[in-house]
This record gives sequence, C-alpha cells and structure tokens, in this order.
Amino acid sequence: MSTIARTPTDDATRADRTWTLDPDRALPADPAVRPIAREIYAETKALPLVSMHGHVPVEWFAEDRPFPNPADLIVVPDHYLVRMLVSQGVPNELLGVPAAPGSGVVAETDPRAIWRRFCAGWKHFRGTATRFWLETELVEIFGVTLRPAEDTADAIFDQVARAIADDAFRPRALLDRFDIEVLATTDPAWSTLEHHAALAADGYGDRVVPTFRPDPVVLLDSATWGQDVERLGEAAGEDVSSYRGYLAALRTQRLRFKAAGARATDHGHLATDTTPLTDAEAAGIYGAALAGTLGPGDADAFAGHMLFQMAAMSAEDGLVMQLHPGVLRDHDRGRHAVFGPDTGFDIPVVTEYTRALRPMLEAFGHHAGFRVVLFTVDEDAFSRELAPLAGVYPSVRLGAPWWFLDAPDAMRRFREAVTETAGFSNMSGFVDDTRAFCSIPARHDLARRVDAGYLARLVAEHRLDLDEALDTAVDLAYRLPLAAYATR
Amino acid sequence: MSTIARTPTDDATRADRTWTLDPDRALPADPAVRPIAREIYAETKALPLVSMHGHVPVEWFAEDRPFPNPADLIVVPDHYLVRMLVSQGVPNELLGVPAAPGSGVVAETDPRAIWRRFCAGWKHFRGTATRFWLETELVEIFGVTLRPAEDTADAIFDQVARAIADDAFRPRALLDRFDIEVLATTDPAWSTLEHHAALAADGYGDRVVPTFRPDPVVLLDSATWGQDVERLGEAAGEDVSSYRGYLAALRTQRLRFKAAGARATDHGHLATDTTPLTDAEAAGIYGAALAGTLGPGDADAFAGHMLFQMAAMSAEDGLVMQLHPGVLRDHDRGRHAVFGPDTGFDIPVVTEYTRALRPMLEAFGHHAGFRVVLFTVDEDAFSRELAPLAGVYPSVRLGAPWWFLDAPDAMRRFREAVTETAGFSNMSGFVDDTRAFCSIPARHDLARRVDAGYLARLVAEHRLDLDEALDTAVDLAYRLPLAAYATR
Amino acid sequence: MSTIARTPTDDATRADRTWTLDPDRALPADPAVRPIAREIYAETKALPLVSMHGHVPVEWFAEDRPFPNPADLIVVPDHYLVRMLVSQGVPNELLGVPAAPGSGVVAETDPRAIWRRFCAGWKHFRGTATRFWLETELVEIFGVTLRPAEDTADAIFDQVARAIADDAFRPRALLDRFDIEVLATTDPAWSTLEHHAALAADGYGDRVVPTFRPDPVVLLDSATWGQDVERLGEAAGEDVSSYRGYLAALRTQRLRFKAAGARATDHGHLATDTTPLTDAEAAGIYGAALAGTLGPGDADAFAGHMLFQMAAMSAEDGLVMQLHPGVLRDHDRGRHAVFGPDTGFDIPVVTEYTRALRPMLEAFGHHAGFRVVLFTVDEDAFSRELAPLAGVYPSVRLGAPWWFLDAPDAMRRFREAVTETAGFSNMSGFVDDTRAFCSIPARHDLARRVDAGYLARLVAEHRLDLDEALDTAVDLAYRLPLAAYATR
Repeated sequence: MSTIARTPTDDATRADRTWTLDPDRALPADPAVRPIAREIYAETKALPLVSMHGHVPVEWFAEDRPFPNPADLIVVPDHYLVRMLVSQGVPNELLGVPAAPGSGVVAETDPRAIWRRFCAGWKHFRGTATRFWLETELVEIFGVTLRPAEDTADAIFDQVARAIADDAFRPRALLDRFDIEVLATTDPAWSTLEHHAALAADGYGDRVVPTFRPDPVVLLDSATWGQDVERLGEAAGEDVSSYRGYLAALRTQRLRFKAAGARATDHGHLATDTTPLTDAEAAGIYGAALAGTLGPGDADAFAGHMLFQMAAMSAEDGLVMQLHPGVLRDHDRGRHAVFGPDTGFDIPVVTEYTRALRPMLEAFGHHAGFRVVLFTVDEDAFSRELAPLAGVYPSVRLGAPWWFLDAPDAMRRFREAVTETAGFSNMSGFVDDTRAFCSIPARHDLARRVDAGYLARLVAEHRLDLDEALDTAVDLAYRLPLAAYATR
Repeated sequence: MSTIARTPTDDATRADRTWTLDPDRALPADPAVRPIAREIYAETKALPLVSMHGHVPVEWFAEDRPFPNPADLIVVPDHYLVRMLVSQGVPNELLGVPAAPGSGVVAETDPRAIWRRFCAGWKHFRGTATRFWLETELVEIFGVTLRPAEDTADAIFDQVARAIADDAFRPRALLDRFDIEVLATTDPAWSTLEHHAALAADGYGDRVVPTFRPDPVVLLDSATWGQDVERLGEAAGEDVSSYRGYLAALRTQRLRFKAAGARATDHGHLATDTTPLTDAEAAGIYGAALAGTLGPGDADAFAGHMLFQMAAMSAEDGLVMQLHPGVLRDHDRGRHAVFGPDTGFDIPVVTEYTRALRPMLEAFGHHAGFRVVLFTVDEDAFSRELAPLAGVYPSVRLGAPWWFLDAPDAMRRFREAVTETAGFSNMSGFVDDTRAFCSIPARHDLARRVDAGYLARLVAEHRLDLDEALDTAVDLAYRLPLAAYATR
Repeated sequence: MSTIARTPTDDATRADRTWTLDPDRALPADPAVRPIAREIYAETKALPLVSMHGHVPVEWFAEDRPFPNPADLIVVPDHYLVRMLVSQGVPNELLGVPAAPGSGVVAETDPRAIWRRFCAGWKHFRGTATRFWLETELVEIFGVTLRPAEDTADAIFDQVARAIADDAFRPRALLDRFDIEVLATTDPAWSTLEHHAALAADGYGDRVVPTFRPDPVVLLDSATWGQDVERLGEAAGEDVSSYRGYLAALRTQRLRFKAAGARATDHGHLATDTTPLTDAEAAGIYGAALAGTLGPGDADAFAGHMLFQMAAMSAEDGLVMQLHPGVLRDHDRGRHAVFGPDTGFDIPVVTEYTRALRPMLEAFGHHAGFRVVLFTVDEDAFSRELAPLAGVYPSVRLGAPWWFLDAPDAMRRFREAVTETAGFSNMSGFVDDTRAFCSIPARHDLARRVDAGYLARLVAEHRLDLDEALDTAVDLAYRLPLAAYATR
C-alpha cells in the first residue's frame, strides 16, 4: 500500500516547485488532435480582446488609480473565489467581504490576512476554472513563480503588491497591455454616464462602452424599486408617475446609452417569460407598484411584459438585447442581509426558453433591427431549446457558456451540444462576463484554447477542413462578438 | 499577429481544393481507438439499409419519375438545410419554399438561384450533421469534386442536374444502388394506400411499406381535424359520427395498413401523456369536438387517452407503436401561416416520460403483442427516464437519436447516456427519419461510423471484447431495427 | 459483405476463449493519458475500502453463515441484473424473485436453472456497469475463467458453488479479504440493532455500522405507515399517539443508532421539498394520519416538513444526513403487488434542488453541526444545481454518482459536470450503495479507475499537477468518505 494513503499530505506544505505555465495547457491530450489544436490556437492567441459583456467598474478606467492591494484586487471582489472558500468553512467576513452596519459581523480589513486564507485554501480550487484563471494571471501578469500555499502566501503577496504599485499596472495601462480592443461595462438604467463621458474626453470613448441594465426598475419586487425608478425619472428628465412616462424614461436613457457608445442592454430576470400585457394592464400594475398594492403574480407578469417592451425598443433603437435568465439570486437570504448581493449565493434553476420566448420571437424574431443574445446556466437547454432557436431565427445569437459554465469542460460540452444544430455562425463568440479585471486575458485565452481543441477534433475526425477550422477560430474569438454586438 | 485576423476571409472564394472524403471520417481520432473502430466499421459498412422510419413520399417510388432539378431534390424539401440559411437571413421564400396564395409572399422559382444561395451559405453548415450528409451525398452519389461556394455553385448544379437526368438516378434504381432492404414511408390514417398497392403490383410490396400516422385525427385541436376524420370514415367505410365508429375506423385502417405491409404506427404528440379516459368521457369529448364545443383541456385529455387506445390496438394487431413526442410545432405562427409546416420552425420542449407513460406501461408493458419504440429530442431524458424504462419493460425499445440529435456528437452522447443502464439489446437500432431520400446512405453510414467509434472505445478500455463489439455493431446497424419493427 | 452480417451469431455459443482481466481496464485509451492514469490508479488501488452507504443485510455479518448458492448470492438479490433480463423477456419469477402468496405466480426454486438463465442472457449486459462488476467479481473473487454463456453456465455454477462452500468465503472472512475498513448497513428507524450489538460484542462494532432510515415512518402514504410507527414507538419506548411523542421517538432512536456507531441517516423521498410546517400544522396532519383522514397534499407537505425536522435533529446530534430523492418507486404497481419492492421497477424523475432545499439550507446550511450529502439520479442537476450548492454551503457535500449513474461513463460525466464549479473538496468520495456484497471491491475498483482517468486527463492537459492528482485520488477514494461521514 502506498505510504501516502493513510497520511494525508497537506498540499500547503509543498511549495518547493517552481510554477510555470505549459504552452499546451487546456489543449486536448490526444496526440492525433493536439498538433492540430496548436496550429489553430496559434491563429487566435494574439488577437485583440473583444470584451462585450462584463462587470469591471467603469470608475477604474475613469479614475485610473493604482489598485489598492492584492486581496482587494484579486480575492474580495471575485465571488467565484470567495464562494469556494466559504464552502470550505471560511466565512465571507474573513475574506474581507464587507458586512452591513448593524449586522454585528465585522469584516477582515488586513489584506495580508485575507491573502493568507486564500493561499491556504489553494488546494480546494483544483480542477476549477478559477484555478486556471488565477494560475495564468499570477504567473503571466504578476510573474509569480511559487505555487500558492500557506507558507508562500506572504512572498506572493509582496510580489503582487510590488507589481501593482507600478504605473504600468494602472487600469488604462493594462487595457493596452491586455490588448483590449473594446470593453463593455454594465451600468444601471438611471446612470448619467459621467465616467464614460470622462473616458470619451480622454479618447477612450470607443474602447470602454456602457451597457444598459434596467433590471432594478423593471422587477417590481426589487426592494429598491421605488427609489430606483425615481432615479430613472430624474436621469431621463421624465415624469415616471405614469406608466407612459416610465416607458419614455427608459427610451430616453437607452438613447443616452447608445449615444455614449453602448452596444447592448442586459436583462437578468429569474424567468424567461416574454408575454406582453395590454397597455391598460401594464399601466394598472405599474400604478399598483407605485401605490404599494401589487397583487400576487403582478411582478412576474410585469417582468415578462417588460422583456417584450425592451425587445420592441431594441427593434427601434438597435441596441442588442442580452438575456441572462435562470439564476435564483441570494439563495441564502440571511447571508444576503449581511453581505449583500454577488457574494456567492446565486444558484441556477431550470430555465425554459421555447415557450417563454415565443411571444417575443413571433413579434421581432425576423425584424431587421432586432438582435437578441441568449445565455443560460441550465446547460440542458443548449441542445434542446437554444440551438434549435438560434438555428432558425435570424435575430437570435447564442451567448457563450456563462458563469459556472465558463470552464474548459463546460465550454467543450457547449460546443458539442449546439454546433451540430446551430453551426458556428449563430454564436455570439466569447464573452468574459467578469468583474475580475486581471483575469480577462486568462479567460479569453482559455476559451481560445478550448475552441482550438474542439475544432481540432473536428479536423482530426475529417468533419471539417483545416482552412475552415482556422477561419472559424478567428470568427469565434474575434469577428463574431464584434458582429453579434454591432448595433443594428 | 496573424494576418488573417483583421481581414475576414470569405470561404466562398476558396474553391481551389479538390473535395474528397477521407475513409476515416467520423471515426475517433485517438490512435489507440481508431484502428479498432476501422475494424468494427468494416463489419457493417456494406450491410443493407433497413429504413424503418422516414418521410420519403411514396409517390416517388410508385411513379418512379426522374427528380426535377438539384434545388428541388436537395434544398427545398430539407428543412434542416432551409432553417440554417433562414437563421442567416435568407428567408424561406428565397429558398423556394412555396408560400400560401394570398400571403403576398412569392417563392423563388429558379432552381439555379436557389442553388446559388445554398452554395453561398455553405460556410454556415460547418460542424453540423447536414454538412456531413451533404458532403457524403454530393461526393459519393453525384461525384461532385468542388466544395460548394458562390463561385462553384453553377458547376455543381450542372453536375447534379446531369446525374439526375440519368435513369440510374430514378427512385427505384436508387433503392437498389443504396442497397435499401426495406423502407417505411409515413402515411395518413385515412390513406387508401394506392401507391403502396401499385408498388406491390410491381414486386416492391415488402420493400416500400407504409406507416400508420393518426395524429391529425387524434389531436382535436388540429385545424383540419373535422375534415380529416371524415376522410378517415370514408376510407374505412365506417360512420365516424360516433366515438365507437371512430374507433372502429381506426381499427379498420390499421388492419388495412398491416395488410399492405406496415410494421408500425407513429405518434407525434406534443405531450407524452397516456392516461385513459372512461368510454363515456372519451365519447363526450369526441361529441364536443364534432359539435365544436370543446372545453379547455379536452383536446389534451383526448390526446392522452388516444395514445392509450393506440397501445391497446397495437397489443391486438401487433403493429409496433412509435412515440415521437416533445416538439412544439410551428413555433412562429406567422411563418406557419405563410409557409405551412415542416419549414424549420419546430422547437423541442422539456418532455416527461416516467409518469406520462405509466398508465400505458402498467397496462401493456408486459403484453406479448405490444412493442413501443420511444424517441426524444430532449436528451436529458435518456439517462434519467428512457434508459431505465427500456432497461426493465420488455415491450420498450429505445429509438435512435432523433432529429436534432441525429448527429455525430449527439449520437455518441446517446450511447454513453443509455448503454450503461439499458445495454444494446433494448435499442431500436438506427432509424434515419428523413424526407431527403439521397441523404439516406450518408445517414446510415454516419451512424455506423459513430457506433464503431463508441464500441471501439469500449474495446480499447477493455470494457467489451472485440468479438462482442463486432457482433453488437451488426445488431445496431441491421438486426435490431428488423427485430424492433417486426410485427408481433 | 461480411459473412457475419446476415447470419446472426449467438454469443452464447462462443465460450472458447479464456476470460482474463486486463490491468488497464476502464482507464482511458488515449496514449497520452493512460500512463498517467496508471500511475494515479497505482496510488489508490490497494487502499482499504470505506463503504459508508449500502444495503448488505447486517444479519450476514452477525450470523456469518456460508452463502447458500451462486444464484441466491449473485442473481436473485441484484435488481440491476434482474431488471435487464426482465427487459429481455425473462420474467422476475423465472429468476427466483419470490412472488406474493396468493398471486398465482410461482418463483423458480432451482438455483441452477436461475443461473442458466442468467448466463444465457450474458450478451445483454454488454456495455453496462453490471457487466464490469460481474466480470471483475467472477474472475477475481471466484476464479472463473470461462465467459458466461448457455453452455458454460453449469461449469461456472459449480466453480462458484465450490468457492462459497469454503469458510474463507463467509461474510466476515470476506470483510478481511476485501479490506473493508468500515461498512454501513441500512436499518429501519425502529430497529433495536441486536445484530449490530452482536457484531460489537465480537469486535466488529466500528467496522459494520448502522444507518438510520426513517422513510416508512415519515412518508404518510406508505402502506405500512401505521404499523411502522407503532414499532418505532415500541423500540423507542415513547407514546407515538401524539406528534410530540413521535418526534421524541425519532430523537431517541437516532441517539440509539449513534451509540451503535451510526454515522448517518438516509432519506429516499420522491420529492426534495424541505419546507417546514408550524408545529400545529404538523401535529394536525400527524393526527389525521393516525385517524385515517389525510387530505390531499397532506402526505407531501408532511414529508417536506420531516426532512426539515431531520435536518434540525442532525444539527443537534451530528448524524450526517443523506438525501436520495427523485425515484418513482414501483412504477409498475402490478409487478409490485406480486414481487414487492426493489425488483427493478424504480424509475427516476426530474428532481429540483435549488428551491426545494432552500428552507433547510437557510436554516442549517452554515451550522457547524450539520452535514448533508446530496445524491441524484437526475444528472442534469449536477452542473445546474448541485455543484453550485455544494460549492458555497459549508454543510453540503455532493454524493457520488448513484444507482444508474454508478457506471464508467456516467462517473466521468459527473466529474466533468461538477468539478469545475465545486472542486474536489466538496465531494463525499465514493459510495457503493449496493446489496450485492461480492460486487463491493469491483465497484470501488471501478470508481478508482475512472477517477484516475479523469485526473490523468487534467494532468495531461496541464490543468493539474501530478502531485496534486495523486493527492486528490487518495482524497476521493479514502479520505473524503471518512471525512464526509464523520459525525459532527
């Protein structure tokens, strides 16, 4: 029997090897496929990054300040990373996630202590996408050569801290270093977009663009709906005490976003329903929401109605509509009360598309001005519903594997599930969807590697010619996201 | 950076390479698996084709006329092909799909123009099953040596047109050339089967057999239900003004089909429900349908009831029952009004089997005269419901991956999802389910290749002996479909 | 054309080859992966077996009698095996499954006749997990050298019969031979655990431990609920005529189980609901159940409530909670009336976790005393719901692929579906869940091989370092099940 067996080894004690990145990482191992995958990957690895959907705060670029410290750059804001450590018994507050005043919970404020907890838990990331991104990011961007562990934590912290103190690591410099051609931020519907205006004044107007996100003013059961709608009205200069004024405010703000370079809107409803109400019904529910007298089902009905309205406005103004449905946010309401949203407790649910999208697609599915990009975290829908829909409606593009599915095996499953029905031309191409700015190059790189592997297998199985695979790889990495997110 | 990157290449301009088919296409690339796959495929590649479910019009064989032109043979009737081009902005009418009179839409009538649109869109089929089938069909049957593209369209059109002008390309000659041992057509329940009678008179009675398809007379919400039931009554010589007469008409017609060589019935309900009603309930709903006074839920209840009745009749007359549920037909009702059914707008939905089939399987699941073949386009059901059901009920066989799932990766997933629970002996074997006659050999060939690859992996992983794999390959390609569709 | 084609070969006639096991079986074929897989597998193959969930009868060890005969050891009690032969037309009774008195059905009593039917059907197990386990078991444990077939049946029967006549094949001796460190049995909530007491007296108290299974006293629609609750009350010495007494009885019995070495409870509800009722509501339904006046929905509501209560008790007493939901038991009620439960007619259904577990996880998901292990036979839930839940709640561990999913390809899909989101540290490690005692080594061996293959691919794709893979393999096979099932 192996001696390792009964003596649990602590990975944290094994920091004796130098950390390097293999050039073939995430390419298929099969010796008949890997050389082809290398050739295909070589075609895309140096392409500029097109980042059409993400959550990096626009202030970072507008203000262009140095990043504060390794923990606040890499650990605290990354809910993928935080949730894994929480699952292993490290509570959010010990990872520096700010707790609500009055909650009695006090967040760790020592970045080095947070960083040590992260490094001590490195073992738990084995096999995850987070591991791949962090490894690439730490080695390639920050030049780390030690594998994270309890006893390497301080050295790595110091190295990253030194790096980000350098002006070459300020946000705008990194935009260049990462070769980001365009990056979309996500902005509330009531934003007046000053940060984007400031960026435009500095010549970054085409490079950092806003995205219109109206969920808080559209989901009547949002706790802050009332105040958010007021802010919408103020921003738009419209009287939102009527449903008509509310629609006008949305229209006005959409045009403001478009004028500021926005390509798209984004919608994160729980359900996918797009059934329109009559104007009278919608106005009635809207009034009830203002009066605080919503009936059961009203909020859901209004949410579906508003997706239809957003599609109608997209058909008018040409902003691309993105749907990200099917996530039950804040599954643990107790934790949400303390730590707020986006701290790891969002869990997917079964998501239906065929029937739910029918009203919207019957109305706008062939409209020349309309484009919708569909995402899911319910991967069963890929082959059953999403590929068949994308494979016939000219307005539909399939979004890249999203969130939990933005990982090597899940990305491969995505291609295998959708390509045979919908081909490649109906895809959005890669979308990184991250708030972890320094992980963006790693995320695009991983997607390009996985796509190269998938295409290489098709070539090795004589299902695609090599010239077609090379051309398709560039489509997926570069041309398709530009095309899918071109305003109409 | 690659020079290809910023300059989109138009695949349509690359017609400079000769088109050939690799003998190893669709076999696994893994060098430890491919040689075994070759050996297994060699065992099945020349077996005759057993085509127990499909939609080739029986008139083609009865009349045995030459095919009109390449577009009307290959493009217009193939909704897989049409839908992909529609998704890329080529509307149905420009692909020659006939539009309803009065719709204001005029269909393209120039076959060469249609063919050019198809060839110009060749890029969009990359990675799809359609691409594989067309490639095999064009090269192997029509001897095409140029890859389709805008500038090769005319040359390919001419070559295919020359071929089909030859008597060797008439439908009956192709039956021989394709080595089709038996081909089932799909025929309405009211058919008097003259075409099959004509074929029988010419000695084709065992080779081209009908299939009994009663959906339009069983689904009370079908727009043409009234007239279709009348036609059923006339064909059967029964008075269908009563529920009892309606059942008698169905029984009579089933026996007529059986006498004409039919092996099976086919049922394409949206839901899978098989709950029987009492005679009184069923007769009541039937009467309401005749009177135009159906209540909500009546049509669904009757549909479930009739599946149960069809199973009961199968247990009596021994016709094999095929279930093809779970497709929402004509998702875009606007397009349906203009172009009719089967033009690409059918989209799958979640499909339940465990509870829905319980009434039928409790009643007939062990009946010696009953056989049901279950299909799905909701592949989640394979491992969860269908394999467990097929792996215990002696009457159940699992149909081959259907429609969107009849593609290399989906077929592999099917085997991987069901075999470990249901083995091979509970499978129907391959079913091509196509209206694209000339794609039949390619479809069977692809299935044999994929099965060879799957079996070869089992052998390479020492999960199956080679002699077993060879025997199983022949089962799947040839013996199982004959056995599964043997009347009882 | 191959000569095999038109002449179906009968596999049963091919017994001319010696049966051996390849050392690489179930390792990936890919030549770049297999050598790494071998190295990883070598690290775990000799580890002791930790069998924390199963259904081997405790009497076997308490009484330690020789096994009766090959059929009653290997065929009759294995419902995986029985169901496959049933699906091919061999009814349960001919496989020796006892039929209810008065049913008119007479079970075969000749073990040799049963054995012959099993061997004659050997072909039908091709590609199944049962085939792999039986092959390993017959060759490695019983030294069989002939492949099962009609004409080798008697020789194999004789060999197995000779083996089990030897004292070295008695249950306790096999515990040693199999190197089983700990084995959990499953015991009804009302058990007084005499067999476990007898085992403890003989020094086996830490090695064969009970598991608390309360389903029959918690599911009010169980046919035997009334008598089972009475037995619970007697065993616990509590008055179960009140809801309060019923809860007390459950608490008492849980502590008795824990004192006898139990690590866990097990819950096999159809639904996953964990919504608590108020005490008054629960007491009302409990009273209605005793009075025989349950209303519609009462049993379901009570089942959900009791899962919540069981979680609350787990948080108190530290027994690990196992959930095995989503199986519709006894799909064919006619067969159930004749043959009883566990004879092959249990079929999975769609299973929801995200919403259903919310009440329980909001209440106890962060409780230091609570641990829940989640299983499923609806593999869609793995990537969509189970991995996201396990990847954030510290109390949640993901159970190994269960039942129909405990097979090579399904186990690989499980790892691919969950690891990228939940990592390895949130897994339960392997659980064999079997009543087929002699298949236990084969089941653990297969899981270790499949995990070695998965980890080897990660190493070959440079997604994991080899030292990490070796460490993780030992975690999955040995350390994690011990840790996951440690009482809190």
